Amino acid sequence: MTTDKQAKEKIEDLGKELVKEVLANKPPILNVPVRALSNIVFNKQKEALELGNKISERNFFNVAHAKKFLQTLEVAAKSKDLLALGKHASLRDVFYMIKRTIPNTKTNIVDEQSESDNAIEDLELLTNLSREQLNINANKMGSVAGQVVIEDKGDEIDWSKMGSGGWSIPSNVEEIKFKKVKAKYVIYMEKAAVWERLHEDKFWEKQNCIIMSSQGQTTRGIRRLLQRLSQEHNLPIYVLADFDPWGFYIYSVLKFGSINLAHMSGSMTLSTARFLGITADDIEKYGLKKQLIAFKDVDMTRLKQLQNYEWFKHSKDWQRQFKMMQTMNAKAEIQALSSRGISFITEKYLPEKIKNEDFLM
Amino acid sequence: MTTDKQAKEKIEDLGKELVKEVLANKPPILNVPVRALSNIVFNKQKEALELGNKISERNFFNVAHAKKFLQTLEVAAKSKDLLALGKHASLRDVFYMIKRTIPNTKTNIVDEQSESDNAIEDLELLTNLSREQLNINANKMGSVAGQVVIEDKGDEIDWSKMGSGGWSIPSNVEEIKFKKVKAKYVIYMEKAAVWERLHEDKFWEKQNCIIMSSQGQTTRGIRRLLQRLSQEHNLPIYVLADFDPWGFYIYSVLKFGSINLAHMSGSMTLSTARFLGITADDIEKYGLKKQLIAFKDVDMTRLKQLQNYEWFKHSKDWQRQFKMMQTMNAKAEIQALSSRGISFITEKYLPEKIKNEDFLM
Repeated sequence: MTTDKQAKEKIEDLGKELVKEVLANKPPILNVPVRALSNIVFNKQKEALELGNKISERNFFNVAHAKKFLQTLEVAAKSKDLLALGKHASLRDVFYMIKRTIPNTKTNIVDEQSESDNAIEDLELLTNLSREQLNINANKMGSVAGQVVIEDKGDEIDWSKMGSGGWSIPSNVEEIKFKKVKAKYVIYMEKAAVWERLHEDKFWEKQNCIIMSSQGQTTRGIRRLLQRLSQEHNLPIYVLADFDPWGFYIYSVLKFGSINLAHMSGSMTLSTARFLGITADDIEKYGLKKQLIAFKDVDMTRLKQLQNYEWFKHSKDWQRQFKMMQTMNAKAEIQALSSRGISFITEKYLPEKIKNEDFLM
Repeated sequence: MTTDKQAKEKIEDLGKELVKEVLANKPPILNVPVRALSNIVFNKQKEALELGNKISERNFFNVAHAKKFLQTLEVAAKSKDLLALGKHASLRDVFYMIKRTIPNTKTNIVDEQSESDNAIEDLELLTNLSREQLNINANKMGSVAGQVVIEDKGDEIDWSKMGSGGWSIPSNVEEIKFKKVKAKYVIYMEKAAVWERLHEDKFWEKQNCIIMSSQGQTTRGIRRLLQRLSQEHNLPIYVLADFDPWGFYIYSVLKFGSINLAHMSGSMTLSTARFLGITADDIEKYGLKKQLIAFKDVDMTRLKQLQNYEWFKHSKDWQRQFKMMQTMNAKAEIQALSSRGISFITEKYLPEKIKNEDFLM
């Protein structure tokens, strides 16, 4: 774990390097790896999308680079302040914190949040620290329950004693300490309604696992929490998602990363992730045929994109799934299982799938 | 509080009434208040959107009514099952639970979730129970922190000891018991990032309040939790939202209700709600002019709609705000306050506004 003090020192080192160049009458230059599709490679061994070796030089004396150079240093200064204060800001906060007009000009340091976001990514690469370690947070989302006790901000929190709500996952989980983890695996689902089903049925207690959900996208807080549970406690992560291209993609991003995450792939990908369902085979096996929803054009287009992803291309199992989905020309939701009974998912579907290790990798 | 047993009995009473009509050789009829704009009235005294007196008769022997009649009874039967089991289903679950083909026909009981959702609203009106009381839940979202201890599902939960995450608000808060509530007011904000700012700065501890946020829409769980805190503990609710038509509308729905909520207005509106900010006056007073974002056409259109809402039409204060926003032809976000410093919001803006009772009603 990197402390605020260590992170602050890394930023200060970056500044000192630049000052040294200036004092030596050299142009101050930042060397940032290129973050574009042209520099993204799929690392087969690590099963993760990573950045390649292309470097982009940002020279303060090059008119085309000067603004980006300034933006990166502005963000670095704000991050240093945050670390010194022990406070955290959101991406949007940072945008407003550095948004101002450069004196004696009509030029703003940033006009759009995408500019400060980019500068933050630069800083991540320059310091080798994640933005969470730089005290800059993404959005907060999601709930968790299980037989786990953590310590966070001086509070001891027992995930098994959170009533019907669960513990609300913060945007930044770097400083959480795990005091007790009694679980054989983690189930991650996108849908909060499905999480509430599993929670009401005390699935985590009966099956000795952790249940986690977002409501919407998989935030970096959730991703890092899953990863820490996987790495520090050796827990496999089972992904429960809809049987459609978007459900498959949730798994894909979680396991292999994405273009946006490539520069952070080391701390963001999850090689222990398994796709639990819903699979094409489940449709037949669990009598969900009547619950299929016909594909729209956009579904088929997305499916064809997935089929061609490098990390899926050579997997017979995944290609078989894609093919079957294509033949059905239809998709199905997790909640379709409710047509078999309200607790069919917790009493039959999940225990059976997990016992038989019936998942895709 | 209505127990599951009482709710189940109400549904059984509904069934018995229908059986009585059948045995008396009368056509079974359900009388459901019309839920359409034509039957929505603004109750000035209660400051809430309510349903009027128009009733729609649903006669089983009328071909045009038969399917809706059946859908309502199907939903009633499922709700009764859920109440008997002590389990809760989501709206989507209920859709799948009643979705099947009527024997010897090619007709499905429901084809779209909107049909089962409608049937659930019928049932709410017929039984005078909210769908939460019928054990049918909406989506789960949001976090809360403060010096409050609750009991939920046998767990005692202290909202002041939840680390950086807070307690995750469930979709259904009807059964929560408040054991200790030490707070002078509640601040509700839509943005989770703002909630994290207030939480990190321990605003709830310093100011003796409760902080609550969603991330996205204000769910019924959040709405009911705010209402219970307002009604049972006499707490005013302060709404912190962006300075734009959508921010204003969040407040509008929370306080006065909406067309969709009109049939439930008694348990859904919040007469103690106050709009704390961001107001047009705040832009000047707190130096946010440079952070204004120019209006798009869609913003202006929405603003004009708000201006004409019956509950805003006669409010000088609100009309003044609308006018000033129109003149500025621009909007501003809560996070714009970060341009004045990361903790400007918790150290200056909020304490000052609340001390001066500088809010709109």
